[in-house]
This record gives sequence, structure tokens and C-alpha cells, in this order.
Amino acid sequence: MENRITKLFGIKYPIIQGGMVWCSGWKLATAVSNAGGLGLIGSGSMHPETLREHIQKAKKATDNPFGVNVPLLYPQIDKLIEIIIEEGVKIVFTSAGSPKKYTSLFQNKGITVVHVVSSALFAKKSEEAGVDAVVAEGFEAGGHNGREETTTMTLIPKVRETINIPLIAAGGIGSGKAIYAANALGAEGVQIGSAFALSEESSAHIAFKELITKINEGETMLSLKKIAPARIIKNRFYEQVTNLEQKGASIEEIKTLLGKGRAKKGMFEGNLEEGELEIGQVSSQLTTIRPIHTIIEEMVAEYNATSKRLAKHKL
Amino acid sequence: MENRITKLFGIKYPIIQGGMVWCSGWKLATAVSNAGGLGLIGSGSMHPETLREHIQKAKKATDNPFGVNVPLLYPQIDKLIEIIIEEGVKIVFTSAGSPKKYTSLFQNKGITVVHVVSSALFAKKSEEAGVDAVVAEGFEAGGHNGREETTTMTLIPKVRETINIPLIAAGGIGSGKAIYAANALGAEGVQIGSAFALSEESSAHIAFKELITKINEGETMLSLKKIAPARIIKNRFYEQVTNLEQKGASIEEIKTLLGKGRAKKGMFEGNLEEGELEIGQVSSQLTTIRPIHTIIEEMVAEYNATSKRLAKHKL
Repeated sequence: MENRITKLFGIKYPIIQGGMVWCSGWKLATAVSNAGGLGLIGSGSMHPETLREHIQKAKKATDNPFGVNVPLLYPQIDKLIEIIIEEGVKIVFTSAGSPKKYTSLFQNKGITVVHVVSSALFAKKSEEAGVDAVVAEGFEAGGHNGREETTTMTLIPKVRETINIPLIAAGGIGSGKAIYAANALGAEGVQIGSAFALSEESSAHIAFKELITKINEGETMLSLKKIAPARIIKNRFYEQVTNLEQKGASIEEIKTLLGKGRAKKGMFEGNLEEGELEIGQVSSQLTTIRPIHTIIEEMVAEYNATSKRLAKHKL
Repeated sequence: MENRITKLFGIKYPIIQGGMVWCSGWKLATAVSNAGGLGLIGSGSMHPETLREHIQKAKKATDNPFGVNVPLLYPQIDKLIEIIIEEGVKIVFTSAGSPKKYTSLFQNKGITVVHVVSSALFAKKSEEAGVDAVVAEGFEAGGHNGREETTTMTLIPKVRETINIPLIAAGGIGSGKAIYAANALGAEGVQIGSAFALSEESSAHIAFKELITKINEGETMLSLKKIAPARIIKNRFYEQVTNLEQKGASIEEIKTLLGKGRAKKGMFEGNLEEGELEIGQVSSQLTTIRPIHTIIEEMVAEYNATSKRLAKHKL
């Protein structure tokens, strides 16, 4: 299949690996790119010079296109951007912030820019800011999430009717049939997080990966709603946040009491109770830790089987 | 198309109208049945003798199959069941309670029983209770909803791999492409609420229908989480509930302060600020009040266009 997404990035499959803190370094990103998708180095959990190292390793590990995910609220954003440009990165996904300021800055350097949104309203604003494509991410997605709580099923058709540029669906997509469903709803590609977070090539701690294989329905929740909503696993950290929020604690109090580095503690160091464990609802369908090429091959096979099953389906 | 759902009910399209309080009387139900779907009289907002009247009127208004939705927590449940059996209703959808007690009771009278769930766990329990099919309803759905907050995109594949009986998807489905997506995820039929709630034949107040046409993203929320979660429009009633919950009010306090009859006040009497207005996220895609046959014809046409668009789509 060739479409606007495969052409935009020069990839075989319209399958993009979401940039994830503590999971998506050069190893995961290049595994996805080598398997025919688009890998993204998640810079959100990296020092600027660590990002440089990952970009350089990625360039050696693949000849295929790859990109970098940049949370626009990153404290040393200017340094990060400098490195991305210096290292000749060709694709940037921006998230958690306004694309207005940075889109033309990147594009002037020949970089393709995609922005992640959680509403049709911000998809429209991103289009107006000149981005090359949009990722629309639903409520079921892991990690940072929108305040509107709009699910992928309702978000994608609404965004599709609102913008004309290429649309990538995210949230709840971890299988070939879900990719097909996203396609039916109007997306031209998908961004996948959870199903890649527990791959062999993910840099997440093995204890976190093993926990993901055991997650059941209702065991992730949208939390941290007072600060910045994020879907996380219900553990002791989650309970602490919930208690503070229910007691009416202020944003500052919550931030102070929780302390810093909880995401690293959980996902990278494997402290499953005290750490912040970001993962999507689709984790309830994930049961094995496998290499990326196996995961993507299975998705492609299931997509094609779904296509065959629904062929000439008419009401 | 013929599948297990169309055969189970003897209908043309695997499109089922969800039983909705204050919206789905005999008029809406028979309009859906006459258009080739399956209409359901929502008994949740009716006195038992009112339900009898609606069943009798429905029998006169259509020769096609129709059913009754029964919330199992209904106070005079035994009287309701007596009337359903006396009036010779052939299809019952049960919700909001355990199907264990009532399934065989209905089936012994030759009635087809479908139970509504919000998790694979309860889908399995429903299958074990012997129901003929299951409706799995996602977080985006209007009205009563599950505590797991699982969205349709993640719920349907999980339920599909858990049960063998026919599966109907609900939540966020209001268009032909969404029906197609539900199909791709593993459902054999869909249950539709919001898109029918604002039809001409719905018994909802015209002011409520007009408000639905104006709802935007993020303007419905899952509320009443302390009592029984329900997705409603953000109005003064919603703010009252939110304030009480944030103050840490008990279930009894909340119930007392809110008072009774708020759903009737909002949806049936058209008090858009003081009433409880149940509707799904998909309302942000609904813009016109139309007759049921037009709505269903458009869904069928869009489903077939989606099928054509995706034909022979391969990765």
C-alpha cells in the first residue's frame, strides 16, 4: 500500500512508533524503521547530549527514515532543536505544546513536522500552523493525554472532517485489525505506543515490560488530571496522586509531594510501586515480549486477514 | 449481509437502537425496526403499565421484530417482566445488573436475551449465564457506563477474544464508517444511541435534540462516578454533581441534594440546565434532526462506500 503517509516519510508501512519516555531510544526506533515502519527517538526523557548520541547511533543502525519526538514543553528546548538540526534529522514529531512557534523553524531546515493533538480543534490549529501531518490521539492512549477525554473511535472521524492534511490515528491501536479500523474511520496511518513499549528493543526495565503482559481491563487510568493528564497503571504512585487530588491538594502541593523522577523510577528502573508507569488501555491485549520485526509482521498479516475477511462486505 | 446478528433477530441490517430513557418509546423503536434495524423500547423511564401501552402500540406499528430494554435494577422489575411475557415480546436486552437470575426466566418463555456489558470479564459471565448475545459498550457511550473506562477501540477486540457468542459493539458509533470499524474490530453488529436520540421519532424534548446538534468535543463527560457512572452533557446539573463529589460528599448526600427526576427534567421536559442530559461523545458529529429512515439509509450508504474504499487494501 502506498498512501500520503508512506509517501511523506518514505516508508513501507504506515505504522509509526510513538515517541515514549524511557522506552524509545535509538534501538527501538531503528528496529521499527528497519521493519518498514517509522521509528521515533523519544527525546522527552533525554538530556540534549544524550539525544545527540541516540541520533548518531540510529544513523548507523538503519538506512531507513527515522525521526525524533519533541515535547514542546521540554525545559532546554532550544538546545534540543539545535542538536536535531545539527545532526540532520529529517522528521520531527512535536507534542505537548503549540506547534505555532516551531513548525516553520524546522521546515526551513527541510524537516518534516507532525504535531500530536487530542482534538479536532487543535488539529485545525496545527494545520493552520503549517504542519505536514497530524497525529490524533484518543483517551485510551498511554502517557500524556487530552482534557477532552475523546476516544479514538469518536476523535478520528471528527478530525478527518476538520482537516485536509494527512491524519495518523493513535490510542488503543495494537493489532492489525485495529489498524484496519483506524483506516475505516479516516486515518491514513497509525501511531503505536504500548505494543512497542514492551518489545525486546524497548529500553524500558524488564520488570515494567513483564507487568504490561499482565495488565487487565480497568488497570490503567487517566490520572494526574490537575497537572497534565496521563494514563498510568494503578499502583501505589497512582493511589498517592488520587489521594492528593481527592483531598483538594493544589498543583504545587501535588508536585512537591510526588517529587521528581517518578517516570524514570518506574519505567526505567523498574520500581513498579513507587514509579509512574505510563501505558495504554490496549495493554490488556498484550501478553508477550517479542522482537519488533515479529510484532510488525503479525500486525501486517492480521491487517491483510481483516481486509480479506471484510472484502466485498455490503449492508 | 447476513450474519449471526441478523439471523438471531430476523433483521435486515445488524443495526440495533439502544434502549434510552426518555427517548426510545414505541415510535422510535418501530421506526428503526421498519427501517431494517432492531428497535428497542427503553423501559427504564416507564411505569410498568406505560411499558404495556408502548408494546401494544409497537405491535400495531410494525410487523418487524422489536424488543424491550430492561435495566435489571428497575424497582418493580417483577411487574415489568410479567408484562413483557404477557405481551409476547420476543427480544429482551438486559443491562445494569447481573444476567444470572433473569436470562433463563426469559429464555424459558421463548425470549431471546442479550446483555449489555462494559468489560470482557462480564461478557464472559454473561456467556456463562446463557445469554444469546452480548452488547459491549465503550467509555464514549452516553448514559450509564462502566467503571473500567475502557473505550470501544480496546474493548471490542478483547471481548471478541474472550467469548464465542455473537457480539454487538456500542459506544462512539454513529456513522457507516464507524459501523465498518466496529466490524473490523470483531463485532457482528452495532448498538446505536446518540445518533437515534435526536431523530424526529425520538420522544426526547426538542430543546434537548437541538442542544445535541450543537455539542462539541469535550462537552460531555463521564460523571456521577460515586453513584453509577453516566456520560452527560456539561451543564449546571453536571457542575452540581462535580462540586459535590469534589467536596467529598457521600453517596446519600449527593442523591439527596440532586433530588429525583433530573433525567426526566432534562431530556423529556427540556430543562437544559437543571436536568441530567445523557448523550455520547459521538454527539459532536451530529448536526441535524432527521427521520430514522434517512439516518439509517445514510449509514448503510456510508458503510458500503467505506467497504468499496478499503476493498483489496493490503499492507
